[in-house]
Amino acid sequence: MAQIIPVKVFDMVVFGATGDLTLRKLMPSLYLRFRDGQAPAESRVIAAARTPLSEEDYRAKIADALHTFLDESQRDEALIRQFCAALRYVALDGVSGEGWERLVDLLATEPERVRVFYLATAPDLYGPICRNIRKFNLITPLSRVVLEKPIGHDLASARAINDEVGAIFEESQIYRIDHFLGKETVQNLMALRFANAIFERLWNADVIDHVQITVAETVGVEGRAEYYDKTGALREMVQNHLLQLLCLLAMEPPVSLDPNAVRDEKLKVLRALKPIGRAEVGSHTVRGQYVHGAIDGKPVPGYATEMGRPSRTETFVALKAEVHAWRWAGVPFYLRTGKRMAQKVSEVVVQFRNVPLSIFPPAVSDLEPNKLVIRLQPNEGILLKLMTKDPGPGGLRLRPARLDISFQKAFNIVYPEAYERLLMDVVRGNPTLFMRRDEVEAAWRWIDPIIEAWADSPDLPRPYPAGSWGPTAAIALIERDGRTWHEDWDNGEG
Amino acid sequence: MAQIIPVKVFDMVVFGATGDLTLRKLMPSLYLRFRDGQAPAESRVIAAARTPLSEEDYRAKIADALHTFLDESQRDEALIRQFCAALRYVALDGVSGEGWERLVDLLATEPERVRVFYLATAPDLYGPICRNIRKFNLITPLSRVVLEKPIGHDLASARAINDEVGAIFEESQIYRIDHFLGKETVQNLMALRFANAIFERLWNADVIDHVQITVAETVGVEGRAEYYDKTGALREMVQNHLLQLLCLLAMEPPVSLDPNAVRDEKLKVLRALKPIGRAEVGSHTVRGQYVHGAIDGKPVPGYATEMGRPSRTETFVALKAEVHAWRWAGVPFYLRTGKRMAQKVSEVVVQFRNVPLSIFPPAVSDLEPNKLVIRLQPNEGILLKLMTKDPGPGGLRLRPARLDISFQKAFNIVYPEAYERLLMDVVRGNPTLFMRRDEVEAAWRWIDPIIEAWADSPDLPRPYPAGSWGPTAAIALIERDGRTWHEDWDNGEG
Repeated sequence: MAQIIPVKVFDMVVFGATGDLTLRKLMPSLYLRFRDGQAPAESRVIAAARTPLSEEDYRAKIADALHTFLDESQRDEALIRQFCAALRYVALDGVSGEGWERLVDLLATEPERVRVFYLATAPDLYGPICRNIRKFNLITPLSRVVLEKPIGHDLASARAINDEVGAIFEESQIYRIDHFLGKETVQNLMALRFANAIFERLWNADVIDHVQITVAETVGVEGRAEYYDKTGALREMVQNHLLQLLCLLAMEPPVSLDPNAVRDEKLKVLRALKPIGRAEVGSHTVRGQYVHGAIDGKPVPGYATEMGRPSRTETFVALKAEVHAWRWAGVPFYLRTGKRMAQKVSEVVVQFRNVPLSIFPPAVSDLEPNKLVIRLQPNEGILLKLMTKDPGPGGLRLRPARLDISFQKAFNIVYPEAYERLLMDVVRGNPTLFMRRDEVEAAWRWIDPIIEAWADSPDLPRPYPAGSWGPTAAIALIERDGRTWHEDWDNGEG
Repeated sequence: MAQIIPVKVFDMVVFGATGDLTLRKLMPSLYLRFRDGQAPAESRVIAAARTPLSEEDYRAKIADALHTFLDESQRDEALIRQFCAALRYVALDGVSGEGWERLVDLLATEPERVRVFYLATAPDLYGPICRNIRKFNLITPLSRVVLEKPIGHDLASARAINDEVGAIFEESQIYRIDHFLGKETVQNLMALRFANAIFERLWNADVIDHVQITVAETVGVEGRAEYYDKTGALREMVQNHLLQLLCLLAMEPPVSLDPNAVRDEKLKVLRALKPIGRAEVGSHTVRGQYVHGAIDGKPVPGYATEMGRPSRTETFVALKAEVHAWRWAGVPFYLRTGKRMAQKVSEVVVQFRNVPLSIFPPAVSDLEPNKLVIRLQPNEGILLKLMTKDPGPGGLRLRPARLDISFQKAFNIVYPEAYERLLMDVVRGNPTLFMRRDEVEAAWRWIDPIIEAWADSPDLPRPYPAGSWGPTAAIALIERDGRTWHEDWDNGEG
């Protein structure tokens, strides 16, 4: 069992307290951190939203949510009652400043505590809420503000939000959350790369042929259709999650684990991304939109049918990214993400070059190149594909085998939700796993020209059947380089 | 299940047919190859020994042996009866030539078949038996002779045997068997090294800190005391098994898998071994002899007690070997083998250098260097030790983890005995896994000065308790280089 280091006593104010994110992720994560003793019992969670609700009703709502979104093994009725009984609810208007007095009174009793303002709202409220936080004099030296993605929908809007929030909070107080960075396996990338001499030796264009990053979902847009239709897969997934993964894979060793040292290195990767503009968008990107198909054998409608109208929004993106740095010259990073895909899987595949020359008889053994597969979900783990001797008393034939580590099995623990870790990191004041302003903006700087080129193009997203691996053009994107998407998802144990 | 490619029909004459090796290894292995259909049913096994036995009595003896030495799952009563009924037994004197007529008559009926003479006798009979084979005109173009180890007890005696046998058979007809080379994992070394680009990148002094080869037995001398006392662990184990492993680990990529190409590379390693003479023997070697102790909680007597007299023979050796080649400059190969050790285990450990610099807080995480562990027994497999993130919502702490492949589990087959493969290789005419004359002699050339230096020394082998890991001097041998014997034998699954 992992060691748990309690954080300091804190007050956490959650704006958007009746929203989906709060119910599904924040409250269950907070409950689990209290349950495990990491969040000290005296700490307070103050829920704030516009909905006029009594504290009792809000507590009942959260008790419901915990029953819905926690696994049975995680639920302890007495603890759930205790957690909910300690919740405060304040009905207020984040923009107008109405109803803030109770919040002010509550916080006033504990001016010395770590104070976290968690903005689980739409991004256009970040500025107004922050201004009210300042207006009501709620900012203490130990205050932090957490911003949910997306930070804007392009570079200009991201800058506007960053300017607004930055006018009120210091950059060191601003925590831009990307829950992908809270995943165990994502953090494990740093351990793998910088705590294992053998991997760092292999981590360059001499040895690596290419890298694949796949984040595939089976769900569709599910009740967020209007929001999603304005966003699309590139902004929703690539700009943050996939690019953050790419940064962790491609960055140079940081000088230390100091948050800014790590983020400096990630920023360098974003800045080294070769631009994809009008000239490259046809050869380097593919966008798709699902049409009707089947998921797990059940028929599902297409995106346009769900929307009730045609749409140019992409629900799938495949990209060929290149990092212009000595270490990565000539090594493409193939990225893809989509909704209504064949399987829910997030995975990084580092494919090594093959042996320079095979001394094995070609008829007998096809040498497959080595692969390092880092699975983020559904089953966090690492897998190294090797060629080994086909056992038996015949000649020396080869076959692929895998060195496999499933963290859950190996360490025999249930993994904490990404949000659990990230919430505690905010309280602890460790921003390593949060995005700095310049990172967010550098990511948009690379994304914007793609969006513009798509907008200028008469082409529509290519249709792909729900339950498939995306449009055939996405397969062509990698195949014309003589490479193939990794689809040998672990289907045994592990 | 592995593919089985049948060999040609053969006649195999086993000299020493009532001996331990024949009963324990050769007949069970032959039975299994017939059972699996690899040895064609028309093939004949002709057993030859001095003991005057009827064919019926010999067949009963082998039926007994098969029941004793095969696992229950391997035994099929009908097949055992069929196998034994087909056995021929010829009572003959290998030296004097008495009784050979029946053998001549038997072989005369099949002059076109692959013909194997397997000399499972004491080495001093190799010359006389070969001379009789020639005298009775038994050598056909498809004849082969198999020599069991030891080929001599030093360079001079090995040369004498090689000269005697070489006067009668071509070198290409002579198969010097080292059953270690028939083990799956040993052969897998070649697959690992030359079919996986990542390992070859890591396989040199820049990345590897040192290599350990351990062959530990828990048995004592068991009825072979007089023979063993003349031999000792250095001749019995190091000169052949451990040095062969070292060769496969250290050799350059061969031009092809052609038997001579592989053996040329192994020979180069043997010739590159830095000599250990009088000046180095104190710092580079440790010999030990077990005294009373306990194995698996049961008391066992010391070696001298078993012998009934004091002895200077070593039952344990630890060596520090060095390969004078660019690839291995400064990388020691630590070898150890012994009887009555704490555990039965044969393992190769490739320990890599640590990261050049740790960016992780030292108080929190001790960075252990990566290790590749190749297990030969009891559980053939490969294990790669990595550092990974300690899972949990705390900071970034590290812990060691292992990528693990147990071949038996992964491929779900029972491994063939080394002898099964090697016998079929002889029939097939593939000498890759057998030692060429120059290899045997090069190994003795390196071993002889050690034996001479020991003989000249007034020191006796250092005592070690039965059931331990050898004398403390063996631990000092590696510890004074700042290194440690790997003793984290897999004690869970795998």
